[in-house]
Amino acid sequence: MIATVIGLGLIGGSFALALKDKGLAERVIGVDNNPANAAKALERGLVDEVLPLDSAVEGVDLIVLAIPVNAIPLLAVKILNRVDRQIVMDMGSTKEELCEVIAQHNKRGRFVATHPMWGTEYSGPEAAVRGAFAGRSVVICQRELSDPDAVATVEGIYERIGMPIIEMEPEEHDLHAAYVSHISQVTSYALALTVLEKEREEAKIFALAGGGFESTVRLAKSSGDMWIPILLKNKYNVLDVLREHIHQLQIMRRMIERDDVEGLRAAILKANSIRRIIH
Amino acid sequence: MIATVIGLGLIGGSFALALKDKGLAERVIGVDNNPANAAKALERGLVDEVLPLDSAVEGVDLIVLAIPVNAIPLLAVKILNRVDRQIVMDMGSTKEELCEVIAQHNKRGRFVATHPMWGTEYSGPEAAVRGAFAGRSVVICQRELSDPDAVATVEGIYERIGMPIIEMEPEEHDLHAAYVSHISQVTSYALALTVLEKEREEAKIFALAGGGFESTVRLAKSSGDMWIPILLKNKYNVLDVLREHIHQLQIMRRMIERDDVEGLRAAILKANSIRRIIH
Repeated sequence: MIATVIGLGLIGGSFALALKDKGLAERVIGVDNNPANAAKALERGLVDEVLPLDSAVEGVDLIVLAIPVNAIPLLAVKILNRVDRQIVMDMGSTKEELCEVIAQHNKRGRFVATHPMWGTEYSGPEAAVRGAFAGRSVVICQRELSDPDAVATVEGIYERIGMPIIEMEPEEHDLHAAYVSHISQVTSYALALTVLEKEREEAKIFALAGGGFESTVRLAKSSGDMWIPILLKNKYNVLDVLREHIHQLQIMRRMIERDDVEGLRAAILKANSIRRIIH
Repeated sequence: MIATVIGLGLIGGSFALALKDKGLAERVIGVDNNPANAAKALERGLVDEVLPLDSAVEGVDLIVLAIPVNAIPLLAVKILNRVDRQIVMDMGSTKEELCEVIAQHNKRGRFVATHPMWGTEYSGPEAAVRGAFAGRSVVICQRELSDPDAVATVEGIYERIGMPIIEMEPEEHDLHAAYVSHISQVTSYALALTVLEKEREEAKIFALAGGGFESTVRLAKSSGDMWIPILLKNKYNVLDVLREHIHQLQIMRRMIERDDVEGLRAAILKANSIRRIIH
């Protein structure tokens, strides 16, 4: 199989590596509208060749969209306009608008809408890593609208990489992603901003920062180029979750204010049950 | 040196191990008001012997308080009432009330107020680990009020364990700890509660939880027995930081609501500068 990966950043670059490492593609062609990124990806051996978009789509078997979510729907349509039996897939963090936009496309069957639940706080081709994705879940949306051979190929790739596959409707995906991914991003940014604000008066505020702070604020290093489109494309879910999260913070704040030990104990015991989920 | 560690949980248990592993104490006596914890600590070899408080204080060289912060000030006074040349130290996460309570004690010089910036989300003697503390900072408050030999002994221990020492006033410590430790705890609890609330309608909400969610919510596994006293003893700082953090979340929420890409870009760029601090 020859694959073309469009977008050679953290996700696209790591996926290109996985395709080669697992023997899934003999040849991976890369496309990136930033020439420095394209050169870097080639230099790091993430892809075998870099081509302009037009020539990179011709004659390949699989086309992978790994670009920011605000750019996916339109490019998905433009590429579907040009494919015949090729398979097109995306790896974006929001799914509702994309699935809506391609729903009535004549070649809808050639597209597989996916979201692998993996990432780090770094970005660009330098951030791509070997062995990424393994052990994490991948969501496939509207599997029934993709042609059976396209689904089989894409699922085969994810299985080979070691990702359990979850089927979900796009609306359900975007709601759940807001709760267990997008919200963490916003709280991390806000936490970093809170402490950085304070640093203006208290220069040594970070001297005591330990492991707990690091783990809650780590995601604040993440690129806005990737995350602003996600937060805006999933706006209504993100706004809802943020409202609920602020509400929970206000409840805890009021309990602390009132020395409400029993209330805090009950809330923390409940929060502790997250142990069921993360080990 | 013979040391007595009072409180054989995560912190006390790990410190007892370090005292033995580094050859700092020939013998470590343990005290815990929970007999099951005491037995477990003995069984795990965290301490050489378990004694009741009264006999554990007699004739030892160093007495370490590693109990919840609400219990430290009173026990510090009771123990200082009984020491002669012995050294007493605590390892608590808040320092202002403790330093105030012991300030005029006749034996104040025998006490060294410390806070090693290390912990995990687990608790109890089962959670104690070898090699804890190394590489993290430790705060010593009001060093000038401790006798030189007491400071030298305690600093010698922390240096041997591999902890850089920071001197700080108790008020400064509590303010900084609220920003870079206590707030992370509250946001983690609130984040867990937000998603657990949603799980009542959406049973599969956690199916997509990945590394980002895990790292921001990890601290929500932490014990209320340890954290409620910290949040309440450091109440006014924690309330201030929480108000500021909620304010930052509301600003980000409003920018998302208004599709304010430029505002989000500026905020996220600023948050990204946390890279200076955590690597």
